[in-house]
Amino acid sequence: MTRTEMLMGAIRTKIANRALSPGERLPSVRRFAEKMRVSPSTVVEAYDRLEAEGIIRARRGSGFYVTGADLPPMALAEMGPVRERNVDPFWVSRQSLDTDASFLKPGCGWLPADWMPHAALRKGLRALGRAEDTLLTDYGTTHGSLTLRRLLLGRFAEEGISAAADQIILTGSGTQSIDLICRLLLQSGDVVVVDDPCYFNFQALLRAHQVKIVGVPYTPTGPDVSAFEQVLRDEKPRLYITNSALHNPTGASPSPQTAHRVLSAATAHGLTIVEDDIFAEFEPELSPRLASLDGLNRVIRIGSFSKTLSASLRCGYIAARPDWIEGLVDLQLATSFVGPSPMATELIAGVLAGGSFRKHMDEIRQRLSQSQKVARHRLEALGLTPWTIPRGGFYLWCRLPDGHDSSAIAKRCLEDKIVLAPGNAFSVSQSAGSFLRFNVAQLGDERIFAMLRRALD
Amino acid sequence: MTRTEMLMGAIRTKIANRALSPGERLPSVRRFAEKMRVSPSTVVEAYDRLEAEGIIRARRGSGFYVTGADLPPMALAEMGPVRERNVDPFWVSRQSLDTDASFLKPGCGWLPADWMPHAALRKGLRALGRAEDTLLTDYGTTHGSLTLRRLLLGRFAEEGISAAADQIILTGSGTQSIDLICRLLLQSGDVVVVDDPCYFNFQALLRAHQVKIVGVPYTPTGPDVSAFEQVLRDEKPRLYITNSALHNPTGASPSPQTAHRVLSAATAHGLTIVEDDIFAEFEPELSPRLASLDGLNRVIRIGSFSKTLSASLRCGYIAARPDWIEGLVDLQLATSFVGPSPMATELIAGVLAGGSFRKHMDEIRQRLSQSQKVARHRLEALGLTPWTIPRGGFYLWCRLPDGHDSSAIAKRCLEDKIVLAPGNAFSVSQSAGSFLRFNVAQLGDERIFAMLRRALD
Repeated sequence: MTRTEMLMGAIRTKIANRALSPGERLPSVRRFAEKMRVSPSTVVEAYDRLEAEGIIRARRGSGFYVTGADLPPMALAEMGPVRERNVDPFWVSRQSLDTDASFLKPGCGWLPADWMPHAALRKGLRALGRAEDTLLTDYGTTHGSLTLRRLLLGRFAEEGISAAADQIILTGSGTQSIDLICRLLLQSGDVVVVDDPCYFNFQALLRAHQVKIVGVPYTPTGPDVSAFEQVLRDEKPRLYITNSALHNPTGASPSPQTAHRVLSAATAHGLTIVEDDIFAEFEPELSPRLASLDGLNRVIRIGSFSKTLSASLRCGYIAARPDWIEGLVDLQLATSFVGPSPMATELIAGVLAGGSFRKHMDEIRQRLSQSQKVARHRLEALGLTPWTIPRGGFYLWCRLPDGHDSSAIAKRCLEDKIVLAPGNAFSVSQSAGSFLRFNVAQLGDERIFAMLRRALD
Repeated sequence: MTRTEMLMGAIRTKIANRALSPGERLPSVRRFAEKMRVSPSTVVEAYDRLEAEGIIRARRGSGFYVTGADLPPMALAEMGPVRERNVDPFWVSRQSLDTDASFLKPGCGWLPADWMPHAALRKGLRALGRAEDTLLTDYGTTHGSLTLRRLLLGRFAEEGISAAADQIILTGSGTQSIDLICRLLLQSGDVVVVDDPCYFNFQALLRAHQVKIVGVPYTPTGPDVSAFEQVLRDEKPRLYITNSALHNPTGASPSPQTAHRVLSAATAHGLTIVEDDIFAEFEPELSPRLASLDGLNRVIRIGSFSKTLSASLRCGYIAARPDWIEGLVDLQLATSFVGPSPMATELIAGVLAGGSFRKHMDEIRQRLSQSQKVARHRLEALGLTPWTIPRGGFYLWCRLPDGHDSSAIAKRCLEDKIVLAPGNAFSVSQSAGSFLRFNVAQLGDERIFAMLRRALD
């Protein structure tokens, strides 16, 4: 193969790969020759021959352009999400993440972008532009930013959780926090308890760990304690993963009695509890936390900043016994090297420490409370009944009128560019086929209610 | 417990947690009352009682301050890294990451911060400050930024690797890329081949996967092919993980013959190869890549931007067969939700597409070449002999004078605040006790050579 042919092959591949799109200008002869370490005449020859093939075209005085002739079809994944997929624990995430901005997403698990604290984030980015070099380019430390861990300790103290900075490790996300804990504590074949229904990704994650998943029915005051105790006796589970407040998908929070009984049963059976407190800050007033009752002994607290501050920063945390944190640090080194971006944690710490964040959260809570009222009214008018009235947060877990299947409705609405969250994506026992989870902050568009009415008719 | 006592408890915990440090001012009565949703008089009472206990102290006209009385000792992890640890695959990472700026780190695996393209990064941060809201706050897509994936396709095309955008998934790091691949393809008990020596974290990662690790001796022209073929026959490994160019720790690159024979043997035995090309851009000229020979069939290409652009952005990638990418997307969803920060990928794409990056890399390669010459001269003067002369990159794998043990020397130098990379951290067979890996870009300080001389005497 001559150098000219190699160059031609490289350009053809770039076009096939869409690294060069139809209509795009090719690099100048001199620049391309430098880049590929060949003589300019080789580039000229390659361009001329590709022009002869009709693949590129010269425009007088302005270089060579891609024509788009003979371009193979785009790969499916570039065209949009996989639509035919069945409703499984990945369905809601895949549809919510991979559909474009033309889709409405009342089933998604985050606030609209314009509810988030962008002014504070932009201010933080400007500050980062003036930060020292090491912050911009280095890995950071194994536990993650001490400043951010100390801010978390301050928040924990308000909840009555006493801890030290070496009891916290920062991670890439709330999900990654749970994943690391599972890697530390579980063997394949172990039994893990979750709520039924629970956040769909708990199931997806536990499947990846090849453990046995056992669901305990969830009630408006927390897990059904008798059923929970029974499972602990019968199945000897190693772990219980739960949201202790503003439970996903129901929005319910456990009563103090339930929290106490769950923790007592866990203590009696040597069970470790992962308390995912990702919605903690959306509560108007703190409900009882297992980590507060237990003091980070058998309870591991995890959370993230994705719901309140930004999901684009990718930062979660784990607070646990110091010896477990040591094991988690090694595991994170082995599997991710370090955790979150030091730039991201600097930005988060800046926003949290700034005066405006608490006010921002006050406003968000009020706005959510207002949105929940409106959403209840609108959904009830369509015959959708909330299973419980959450004290805060953004979820409403609604029962469909009799005879309707939420997976079928979700698939129908997806054709109309509406992403819903069908109940069975959340249910280990697949017993939530008549439920949909709504995000009250994402119900602002009238079309959602029109499409829902049509789908229910 | 009264409200006052609760407040007092919260403040005591904050002080114990170091969320409030000695000498730090407590929040004003009005602000703290608002924050804790109590009346100002409750706060006044709590502050007065804590002052009576000597825990805080009033200064006339300027509020209350933490005294620091009765403060428990700081936790060890806040004081510095664990020093007593044995040399294991975590030793180098833990010491390199967790020692502070007063340490010299000729053993670390990254360039000094002032070698990195901060001007371009700062420019990118300023651009991010003006980006649209969704980029600043949303999760992004399951595969990660299409812009960045297309830029990668352009680079692949230059190497002769043809691929489509749906054959790439962006991840949180190069390490996380390998971890996801292991999760997709390995069962516990499987056999995985690595080079001996190899990047220490391959071993740490594979231990986390509970697989059997088999080392193949590495030669200056790549893995010992006869030994490699023997292992494939005897052990039926599922995966081979390697750096195909500028191998870590030796800096060697396989010859075309070795690359061809390794790939042929892999084909004959149905072995999948993970080609970690994290040092690709440090090569002055491209050496043969397994992914170029194979075309992303049984070779999976992974890499990251940590060595060339910034380790603080946390972004890696995987290029592989489209069906494997689908599986990897689900796995990443289950275990991390999404991959890298969309802000980070936007920043990376901006730097890569900007005109200055190629020039920056040209300069880095020249500077490394110069540094390597100086380092060889200085190390040889101490009796340290390079095992091979790498064609680029930042490593020199050096043999110590007879009778010296690199772990002992590394521990001694750590006491003098110098982090070295002792050979056996890299060796599956623990046969590299007389080697040290040096980073030629991190040898600028005279003290390193003085301390090494002392340690060798």
